[in-house]
Amino acid sequence: MQAMNPKVLISEVGPRDGLQSVKATMATADKLRWINALHAAGVREIEVASFVPARLLPQMADAAGVVRHALTLPGLMVIALVPNVRGAQAAIEAGAMKLTIPVSASAAHSLANVRKTREDMLVEVRSIVALRNERAPHVKVEANISTAFGCTLQGEVAEDDVVRLAAECIAAGADESGLSDTTGMANPAQVRRLFNKVRAAIGGRTGAAHMHNTRGLGLANCLAAYDVGVRTFDSSMGGLGGCPYAPGASGNVVTEDLVFMFEAMGVATGIDLQKLIAARAPLIAGLPGEPVYGMTPEAGLPMGWKQGAVHG
Amino acid sequence: MQAMNPKVLISEVGPRDGLQSVKATMATADKLRWINALHAAGVREIEVASFVPARLLPQMADAAGVVRHALTLPGLMVIALVPNVRGAQAAIEAGAMKLTIPVSASAAHSLANVRKTREDMLVEVRSIVALRNERAPHVKVEANISTAFGCTLQGEVAEDDVVRLAAECIAAGADESGLSDTTGMANPAQVRRLFNKVRAAIGGRTGAAHMHNTRGLGLANCLAAYDVGVRTFDSSMGGLGGCPYAPGASGNVVTEDLVFMFEAMGVATGIDLQKLIAARAPLIAGLPGEPVYGMTPEAGLPMGWKQGAVHG
Repeated sequence: MQAMNPKVLISEVGPRDGLQSVKATMATADKLRWINALHAAGVREIEVASFVPARLLPQMADAAGVVRHALTLPGLMVIALVPNVRGAQAAIEAGAMKLTIPVSASAAHSLANVRKTREDMLVEVRSIVALRNERAPHVKVEANISTAFGCTLQGEVAEDDVVRLAAECIAAGADESGLSDTTGMANPAQVRRLFNKVRAAIGGRTGAAHMHNTRGLGLANCLAAYDVGVRTFDSSMGGLGGCPYAPGASGNVVTEDLVFMFEAMGVATGIDLQKLIAARAPLIAGLPGEPVYGMTPEAGLPMGWKQGAVHG
Repeated sequence: MQAMNPKVLISEVGPRDGLQSVKATMATADKLRWINALHAAGVREIEVASFVPARLLPQMADAAGVVRHALTLPGLMVIALVPNVRGAQAAIEAGAMKLTIPVSASAAHSLANVRKTREDMLVEVRSIVALRNERAPHVKVEANISTAFGCTLQGEVAEDDVVRLAAECIAAGADESGLSDTTGMANPAQVRRLFNKVRAAIGGRTGAAHMHNTRGLGLANCLAAYDVGVRTFDSSMGGLGGCPYAPGASGNVVTEDLVFMFEAMGVATGIDLQKLIAARAPLIAGLPGEPVYGMTPEAGLPMGWKQGAVHG
């Protein structure tokens, strides 16, 4: 295998976004085995936990322990999701290196998801940034604009709202702001248009594309984002985070298929695809009975596949 | 619904490519009901049958009758696949409006699929064109370069072979030459590169993109082809033509998801998505027990969906 500098960063969100969406709670030891396997495959950014009250999300009750373990893996950017200052405090105490804050572009979704208006969430971003500045200035803060491409509660979301919100998050002190297709409503033309608009507003502080595969467009949308300069992509091993075939499913983009697409294109991810596919074993073992998707793992790698070569 | 001129042509291949890949033989009456429903949804090009010996493909024994029925549907381009002059003769007699000839870019696949070398297939193309010129000059002849993006028998396929073969097909008198990812090995960078090279060689005679979803990249590859000017796309209702989850599967791009992608982008297909989804019923009824895929039909159309509007 040819050594290549990664050209894109694949940010694995399965241990947080995926696990908090399934009913079962994965045992902490299983989580750590899975995270180890992801790291061994070359994954260098993982959203490992969510700092929310355990009574709301028992799947995340071990968040601090998971963060502490992840910190022992060399070269890994350890991300925690925090919806508020209290969560940020706990995440910083545990040692998280990056905090990601969900900020809904849809007014209806914001109230439903975090019981706050968009304006109140901006206040929260400012408070989290103040805490970070005081306690842990090395920690990165990322605000992800959820429902950026449409909302199942209110329908369309105005692009101007998305762009303004991203700019307000940066003005509030966030280091980066990315766009999430929380509801699987994005299309490639919209992805290009909206990322271009956001980049025009916040430049290099434009963050990750977080795409869903609800209607099968996940990879096409990632390609569209790549085309307009996005270089960080959230995805979930096995598409964990909602059954892509169920109505209303979230359906994260499958990490394995995303890595296959980029590597086949000659866009280095830094991830060894065969080891990545092997990392499905601890996930499957830790969540018995849960569907684990992925077209590339099912079909197998193409004949003559050589990672690091430009195909085909 | 706003009337819009179609900007892309979706060429439905399910009744040929799909049905000849499943074990069961769909009853002729069911085929006609399905084709009627596709036409009612606005589909204006259908590959309805394959003219091959019935002992080899019993699923296509009723090819002539299916073509004759399809000819009664107004505005429909009726395509038949023909592997040789004998098939072309039968297809022309039945009234097919366009003949599509599979020409493998992979030497190994050519021998396995049609028991002919690539050179012998070019001779066949010339003979079919001669027959067409003599008997039915209004009939179009299309040569589709199969295994254009890689081959499960020989591995990589040289791009120069593909470009030269397409040019030779046009020189042999074919009206168009498209590219097929028969084996699901294509990636978006390769799709752009190869279609650009083919266009440089044969210009406006560049035909359809026929993509498979074997490793989940089907729609991304269609988007890539669209980006470099391709405007005709082969796809199959329900992804019929091989289980996308089985090793070695063909896994055609799902028509419903492809139409959703283009319509969501504001690229008119001329197809009513709700009627298209309704056209799954006769397919499912006619092939009991056969898996029928499609993420968009499973998830449903997004809230606020208005066909003919630019989303979102």
